[in-house]
Amino acid sequence: MCELLAMSANVPTDICFSFSGLMQRGGNTGPHKDGWGITFYEGKGCRSFKDPLPSAQSPIATLVTQYPIKSEAVICHIRQANSGEVSLENTHPFIRQMWGKNWTYAHNGQLADVTKHLSLEAHIPIGQTDSEHAFCYLLDSLYFEFGKTEPSADVLFAFIAKQCERINQLGVFNITLTDGVHLFVYCANNLNWIQRRAPFGEASLLDAEMSVDFKQETTDHDIVSVIATRPLTGNETWHKIKPGQWIVFKQGEIVLQGQEQAHYHKPPVGSF
Amino acid sequence: MCELLAMSANVPTDICFSFSGLMQRGGNTGPHKDGWGITFYEGKGCRSFKDPLPSAQSPIATLVTQYPIKSEAVICHIRQANSGEVSLENTHPFIRQMWGKNWTYAHNGQLADVTKHLSLEAHIPIGQTDSEHAFCYLLDSLYFEFGKTEPSADVLFAFIAKQCERINQLGVFNITLTDGVHLFVYCANNLNWIQRRAPFGEASLLDAEMSVDFKQETTDHDIVSVIATRPLTGNETWHKIKPGQWIVFKQGEIVLQGQEQAHYHKPPVGSF
Repeated sequence: MCELLAMSANVPTDICFSFSGLMQRGGNTGPHKDGWGITFYEGKGCRSFKDPLPSAQSPIATLVTQYPIKSEAVICHIRQANSGEVSLENTHPFIRQMWGKNWTYAHNGQLADVTKHLSLEAHIPIGQTDSEHAFCYLLDSLYFEFGKTEPSADVLFAFIAKQCERINQLGVFNITLTDGVHLFVYCANNLNWIQRRAPFGEASLLDAEMSVDFKQETTDHDIVSVIATRPLTGNETWHKIKPGQWIVFKQGEIVLQGQEQAHYHKPPVGSF
Repeated sequence: MCELLAMSANVPTDICFSFSGLMQRGGNTGPHKDGWGITFYEGKGCRSFKDPLPSAQSPIATLVTQYPIKSEAVICHIRQANSGEVSLENTHPFIRQMWGKNWTYAHNGQLADVTKHLSLEAHIPIGQTDSEHAFCYLLDSLYFEFGKTEPSADVLFAFIAKQCERINQLGVFNITLTDGVHLFVYCANNLNWIQRRAPFGEASLLDAEMSVDFKQETTDHDIVSVIATRPLTGNETWHKIKPGQWIVFKQGEIVLQGQEQAHYHKPPVGSF
């Protein structure tokens, strides 16, 4: 499995604190040692740092914790390989272009038989992961549904959520997806989020001896939402996202959300 | 204008030495202070570092000179903006996917009226540069010529060269383009290259007080070609590529090349 981290904010914000916690789980406090990657948006442009090395031992990851790149949308991933070898082409996040935008995506979970169930036309994977295959399928389905014109956000993300439900039938499909403005998350079974806004307090990482007093780092107008597979801090209240729930964040606020109905009817694992 | 740097090698090789020279031209020994970027291939995967800051003052550029990422194909660019503002989305190199590969491209020169002369269908630019527009045009033309199946290298690069000739009619189109295996370069007016192989010697940078003894860094089997807008070293023989000439390198060796005939008939600038 892997771990996801993402951020949506209404002002360019650095993610050094959260990333400092997450990177420890990449080979130190956690087993996710098969690579890591992070994508920062600045306007419509984005830049990624990625490495097939464990994040806890990566000089590039250390640079990212020390060099505060400020961004309104960030997607990050640490990998524990289960599909596809440990290599750069299998390292998340994956970035592709559509409608004159960079779309960045990361996945936590496993999917069975993607090549059989998710046929591809226009978007061909580069690596061997189920994750990238599912991303290509999402983009293919968007391209064939909407063609050259991007639909409105409510139509777009409702459609993406429907595709996520479908893909999730093949296994576990927790994802983060952004175009730099909207941050979409779909929860199969394991995602948490927190929103930080005034009055800001202190926070302490679970995975490193590190605290931050957000009052010193922010203004009263700042709104920052952080989404993670597991909570990163111990003294704050994180919200667990329900299975089948999807949320779209924009500038740190929730702007769209929905809940897959089918999940209510799914029998719990082991029941009959 | 901008400056290009690229490398093709038969063994994973670091480009720290050449990059150390080039980055000085980004705001120190040269005026190309409007951003820089570098893409390294490792197998089919690639990773980029880019920054709209001047390379001579960029902490990320310093990391790249100090952290030897070994690669068989590298494309690098330092920018002096003339089309499109200084921003991340306008920073080269540009990367897009086709045929299950990452294609990386950088451009030196200026093109007039690209939106008028190079119409786009499937590949839409994210930023505002003539360079990215021309890249989208190249990919569009490949997609509509060859569809879903990549042609053989000789057919592919002869076709790309023809498109370059066409685009070059709009101004100056020196480019580097790679899929991680082949490195294609098209010279409008200004590109130089050098091949280093046994017996290796010493080299000294023109832009920094730095020398390297390649004998200490290589084996007898290593073959490394470096392509640059202007020679980076003073004590080696660089070959000037002719206007209208294109070359494809693979594993450090020239595997394909051609010469646009029209260039022979073009009157020199200022003649009549």
